[in-house]
Amino acid sequence: MAGKIPTSPLAPAAFPDLPVIEGVRFATIEAGVRYKGRRDVMLAELAPGSTVAGVFTRSKTRAAPVLDCQEKIGLDSAGGAAIVVNSGNANAFTGRNGTEATRAVTSATAAALGLDETRVFSSSTGVIGEPLPHDRVTAKLGDLKAALDPAKIEEAARAIMTTDTFPKGAKAEVVMEGGRVKIAGIAKGSGMIAPDMATMLVYIFTDAQIERSVLQDMLGALTDVTFNCITVDSDTSTSDTLLMAATGASGVVVTEESTGFIEALRGVMLDLAHQVVKDGEGATKFVEIHVTGAASDADARTHAMAIANSPLIKTAIAGEDPNWGRVVMAIGKSGADADRDLLTIRFGDVLVAENGWVSPDYREEQGAAVMKRQEIPISVDLGLGGGTATVWTCDLTHGYISINADYRS
Amino acid sequence: MAGKIPTSPLAPAAFPDLPVIEGVRFATIEAGVRYKGRRDVMLAELAPGSTVAGVFTRSKTRAAPVLDCQEKIGLDSAGGAAIVVNSGNANAFTGRNGTEATRAVTSATAAALGLDETRVFSSSTGVIGEPLPHDRVTAKLGDLKAALDPAKIEEAARAIMTTDTFPKGAKAEVVMEGGRVKIAGIAKGSGMIAPDMATMLVYIFTDAQIERSVLQDMLGALTDVTFNCITVDSDTSTSDTLLMAATGASGVVVTEESTGFIEALRGVMLDLAHQVVKDGEGATKFVEIHVTGAASDADARTHAMAIANSPLIKTAIAGEDPNWGRVVMAIGKSGADADRDLLTIRFGDVLVAENGWVSPDYREEQGAAVMKRQEIPISVDLGLGGGTATVWTCDLTHGYISINADYRS
Repeated sequence: MAGKIPTSPLAPAAFPDLPVIEGVRFATIEAGVRYKGRRDVMLAELAPGSTVAGVFTRSKTRAAPVLDCQEKIGLDSAGGAAIVVNSGNANAFTGRNGTEATRAVTSATAAALGLDETRVFSSSTGVIGEPLPHDRVTAKLGDLKAALDPAKIEEAARAIMTTDTFPKGAKAEVVMEGGRVKIAGIAKGSGMIAPDMATMLVYIFTDAQIERSVLQDMLGALTDVTFNCITVDSDTSTSDTLLMAATGASGVVVTEESTGFIEALRGVMLDLAHQVVKDGEGATKFVEIHVTGAASDADARTHAMAIANSPLIKTAIAGEDPNWGRVVMAIGKSGADADRDLLTIRFGDVLVAENGWVSPDYREEQGAAVMKRQEIPISVDLGLGGGTATVWTCDLTHGYISINADYRS
Repeated sequence: MAGKIPTSPLAPAAFPDLPVIEGVRFATIEAGVRYKGRRDVMLAELAPGSTVAGVFTRSKTRAAPVLDCQEKIGLDSAGGAAIVVNSGNANAFTGRNGTEATRAVTSATAAALGLDETRVFSSSTGVIGEPLPHDRVTAKLGDLKAALDPAKIEEAARAIMTTDTFPKGAKAEVVMEGGRVKIAGIAKGSGMIAPDMATMLVYIFTDAQIERSVLQDMLGALTDVTFNCITVDSDTSTSDTLLMAATGASGVVVTEESTGFIEALRGVMLDLAHQVVKDGEGATKFVEIHVTGAASDADARTHAMAIANSPLIKTAIAGEDPNWGRVVMAIGKSGADADRDLLTIRFGDVLVAENGWVSPDYREEQGAAVMKRQEIPISVDLGLGGGTATVWTCDLTHGYISINADYRS
């Protein structure tokens, strides 16, 4: 089905040249879970001593692999670990069968790689409500193990795609006191197709040495300012999963005070988050919404998300219409504090509205020129306090309707 | 612009034959506020002794006429009253100029009809951020006064339309101990067009005799189960206004215990609310979402609105796709209590999912048959408690994108 959807006009020119992370090996294979003629299972093996942290969907109807990961993620272990992911079937809302299928995959992977089962994390993405044909995955574990290769991360990024229109990768290198460490991450999301459901899966690897609890706290804090600040259509998957593994192979220790590393990791996470938005269903515009002057950071985020999720604003952007009135509307409805007469609204550098009315110097052509860009910055100052937030989204186009209503499985 | 949008396929066959409400007279006129060749101002005059109650948008960026109404609505008075409404310009986000324009219209109306200015309520709907040319309205007040006629309610319903594709009216008659009372209501909403903003305006009239505070409480309570239970696209106007006037001309007293009257009024409000949904931008399906078994009524409403506002569900309905997985997704993300394994989902009478998985007897053709209907009932039982809610929405189609992105003003 993915082939029917043209590549996003916002896609990067090429997949980045990701560095090898010592201590991680990848393999992919065509297991025929649902798709034909493409690789649909990826295995990542993590060397002994690797720590793993994870952040997951807050959905109350979480899929079985997510529940399984959440049980395992807090456990300490000195042994190796693995991540096994299939595309084509989300193993979500599959009742007790879902739990059994997840266990079948993770226990077989553990046996094949000589790992403790609690150290095998799995994800599934694709159609929901259908039983995962787990035997098709487990039948390939021998071949997957034999194919493990430190350089195969791009293939891994491709194997986890569902209706994504491009594979997503990002990297960073940090020079620290103890030496040089590398970060490489891959993601999938968020094309979708009836009756599939968008799922964001992200896997990040580093050769830094990071205690599990430190890695977990770092990942959680950075998720709040990266992946939790993007929205395509306000809908939340049952399966969203972000896993990060630190192999320690570089021997360089990272702590909660390693600001250079944290900043580099934030950059990798933000890059992947932006790529997910740029592959949003039907997206033709990438929109950054920056809110300042709110009564609190939480209020700023509420306003920013109200703007980012407003169908009226997203369709106006699709139509290249500098419709600042709809921004006023979204702020008014968000529920967070606002004073109409203190609002300032900018499209790019163009001052559009201030003091409760359109700016006297504003001309519609100025706003229209900003709207013609592929990347559109919208800034709002509430004039109330010091709260700020930045979120990213895409426009709402006929492409979204076509992908989600017209394409039938 | 409205002419470009085809009449909703969900429109009723004809405007209902609304009864004359003694004590109310209507007039409409072409004032050229923005539209050409159509009536765009309506005046309703209410006889002395009429009580007026109102419910308004909760937006924090409310338009000037809304703020003005809210100041006046709590005041008692034995004199007459009036409602004056223009379409074509919302007088919203127009700064101090907006307040002055509202005052100009209401004070001139008061002078023309010999009323206290605090008894003149106004609404404006249409383009926002542009100054209301209030002199075009006030210049017509003499003509409007001369044209006042008890039978002109249908013309009133047409004059307040913006990009509505049909005028909306509803009625009821109640036989009570003291005699017979009548209710007639009109509404506009919620077509929209760049750079306009959808606004719902509703005016309901009765010849019952109802104390102001009783009428206000009744209207507020019934709004929660009617107009506050509909959603087209989750966006909230700066100008939503519901005004109800009781002229008392029938001499029949209605109190908070008049269950027959309250039920009839609820019917009129629900009828108008459904008509607003049926004129939702691009709507081709009318959807009723009924949630039971929630931990509380509030939780049930949260789940129902999460389903009703989900772009993925609304596009699936547009595509006649019985995509129950997206219903599971919306329940999971809503934030209210849910247990995946206790969920029951029905499309129409078809049991789709239960016990955390698709129902063993369900066949896709059954769900697909329900989706082909023009009116689609979706029921969800949470299996947790006694909380219930019912909300109404429409599908999300290419028509919505066309109206809001492609049509440029």
